Amino acid sequence: MKADFLLKNAQLATPLGSPEFVPAKFIVIENAVLAAHRGKIVFVAENNKEASEIELEESAQVIDCNGKTVTPGFVDCHTHPVFHGTREDEFEMRVMGKTYEEIARSGGGIKASVRSLKQASKDELLAEMLPRLDRFLSHGTTTIEAKSGYGLSVEDELKSLEVICEANRVHSLDLVATFLGAHEVPDEYQSNRSDYIDLVIKEMMPLVQNQKLADFCDVFCESHVFNVEESRKILQAAKDLGFGLKIHADQLTHNGGTALAAELGAVSADHLEFSTEKDWQDMLDSQVVPVMLPGAVFFLGKDRYAPAKRMLESGLPVAIATDFNPGTYMSESMPLICTLSCLKLKFTPAQAFTAVTYHAALAINRGNLLGTLEVDKEADLVIWDVPNYKYIPYHFGANLAQTVVKSGKIVWKNESPEYTKY
Amino acid sequence: MKADFLLKNAQLATPLGSPEFVPAKFIVIENAVLAAHRGKIVFVAENNKEASEIELEESAQVIDCNGKTVTPGFVDCHTHPVFHGTREDEFEMRVMGKTYEEIARSGGGIKASVRSLKQASKDELLAEMLPRLDRFLSHGTTTIEAKSGYGLSVEDELKSLEVICEANRVHSLDLVATFLGAHEVPDEYQSNRSDYIDLVIKEMMPLVQNQKLADFCDVFCESHVFNVEESRKILQAAKDLGFGLKIHADQLTHNGGTALAAELGAVSADHLEFSTEKDWQDMLDSQVVPVMLPGAVFFLGKDRYAPAKRMLESGLPVAIATDFNPGTYMSESMPLICTLSCLKLKFTPAQAFTAVTYHAALAINRGNLLGTLEVDKEADLVIWDVPNYKYIPYHFGANLAQTVVKSGKIVWKNESPEYTKY
Repeated sequence: MKADFLLKNAQLATPLGSPEFVPAKFIVIENAVLAAHRGKIVFVAENNKEASEIELEESAQVIDCNGKTVTPGFVDCHTHPVFHGTREDEFEMRVMGKTYEEIARSGGGIKASVRSLKQASKDELLAEMLPRLDRFLSHGTTTIEAKSGYGLSVEDELKSLEVICEANRVHSLDLVATFLGAHEVPDEYQSNRSDYIDLVIKEMMPLVQNQKLADFCDVFCESHVFNVEESRKILQAAKDLGFGLKIHADQLTHNGGTALAAELGAVSADHLEFSTEKDWQDMLDSQVVPVMLPGAVFFLGKDRYAPAKRMLESGLPVAIATDFNPGTYMSESMPLICTLSCLKLKFTPAQAFTAVTYHAALAINRGNLLGTLEVDKEADLVIWDVPNYKYIPYHFGANLAQTVVKSGKIVWKNESPEYTKY
Repeated sequence: MKADFLLKNAQLATPLGSPEFVPAKFIVIENAVLAAHRGKIVFVAENNKEASEIELEESAQVIDCNGKTVTPGFVDCHTHPVFHGTREDEFEMRVMGKTYEEIARSGGGIKASVRSLKQASKDELLAEMLPRLDRFLSHGTTTIEAKSGYGLSVEDELKSLEVICEANRVHSLDLVATFLGAHEVPDEYQSNRSDYIDLVIKEMMPLVQNQKLADFCDVFCESHVFNVEESRKILQAAKDLGFGLKIHADQLTHNGGTALAAELGAVSADHLEFSTEKDWQDMLDSQVVPVMLPGAVFFLGKDRYAPAKRMLESGLPVAIATDFNPGTYMSESMPLICTLSCLKLKFTPAQAFTAVTYHAALAINRGNLLGTLEVDKEADLVIWDVPNYKYIPYHFGANLAQTVVKSGKIVWKNESPEYTKY
């Protein structure tokens, strides 16, 4: 077989894909060889087995990993990366005692980002977004799901999704777009909410679908945002148009969002801090991937994390994501989310890695393409300057990624300048 | 006046030094000019005032900050950076439910690092330590206090301190050494503890003092390590030899360590999770700086943080440090500690910055030299790629430092390679 990319002497740490809807196994392969061709993995073996059948192309990239740890690139399956301006003042207000709800009521929160985004051109939004994508990529993430949702008007939702599509075109990171017109009810529709829901369903959605601007449709289902009835209406319309479904569910109260995800066959239900055992059984029955966002709990100064470990033990392939956004979690680093998941969700490092790679790929319907280092998968991987995969969540707060590979090509290298005297 | 270093158009965010033992003021100077000569700050002014009296030397470094934020370099006043091998397995054990105390009893914890360090040569220890110092420096820290304490024998404690001295010589980061022979009672002395205390006092201490290997002496004062009587004996001996005093106090129980610090006039008392209002008054009366280490609480999966905000409100110049060490906090990043301090100690960003700069300088007796951007201070500073200082703890997990300056010289620059397609 032909190959244009070859890793040798790698310590591969990877989940294994499964046709069943169950938590994936996680394995370590010592002295591994991995070959790829035209972006796909074509060969994986242990003990540096020489694959006589591998025919290296002349310009092939060959990397001796010297025993270093190699993992799949992270899949960040829940992010809000398109926004203009930042909200560090709200961070300070929260630290000084204001709740997220109080800040939202006083004009902060999502609506602050909505006001800002209206002022920004597509070019400005893209220019602000690209360095964020650099940070995702340089910390080992090779694919993100990216939501709109700070537009809340036909023009601004389309603008946001167009920025995501353009970023996907120009940046090495892969972006999978989600339409989140139902992120909040805009101020001008507070007294006629159903008109806004009609706008989302009858105007925004068909445009997004016709222009192929998003794979998924998402709703913020919460009693003070879109209730279950409203969410059902929006998601059912999206399903009828062929969107995959996602939902922000049971984050602040138990209001039935997770059950709705199961009822409609959503691909994922996200947050779930207040979900119940009954919800977990529904998700199992309907193969809805639960997506945990522990960063937002941490950053909001709360302490009720989703019962992620119990969901995992009940047989669900639990995914974890950053929830990167300017209000409730402003960090692109997936290694840091792994640390938080170990400390706060009590996931082992292996469970955390599985959650941010293969399970996360399932949460964006890419389980057949992404999230494991197996033959026929995309050659998206990270070479780490660490002795073993457990070290990554342990030594946190500094970037330990050494080389990031996307579709068999090196897209980032940590080339620290010689800056010290020694 | 002569200058060989000049910053223009800077947004300076800095505490102001004070002769009083009180929390320092924190100010922002817009459009600031800062000049330095031979490593010291010689001029600071607002509104880009042209300092006609500044005589720039020919080879002077001039930096236009374009409005970017500039802060003092961080002073990390409590670290344990000399060790061999790492303890990621213990991190996994803790996540799976073992307590730190259980891990320590089964041979893990400090003693695991003691066993490892004995096997390592000075050259190996130094080679392992230098990349850690790189990470401190590249995240904005320009001075660290560095403790021995994984030796616990004459030979290995001296070896550790010699490595710190050598690192200080070869690396741009400044290291201030602390002798921590009383970090733990070694296994071979468990039945004759007083012999180990004699060894520390009569053999180690005079050698350390004669060879000028440390400024400070520290003790881990805790009922199951060195009790108050034992700690008093050790610290009194150190004081008699001329060491500055530090103490790990009231971390796991309230056992009188903070009161002891006040009694002996220690420079700092560190941890203090279980300290009381009476202790705070004692610290105020004796001018002992309280050092908070919220990272260790976070990383150990505990939730009882020191009552740092109340200490600050009672008039103490509260310092914060990383506690960088291979067991209970494996991160060199001070910005991340600022985020944790905001979220967990409820410090405002300004209070957090003050705690990790000027108050931290007080905690190592360097308040006259370090920790503020004022005339006569060392020109240790960080230029950040952020709109304001509040942004730094808000956007966390990725390194936002752009340029780090130590004694008026650029020692680190973030020169990210062009790795993306755009």
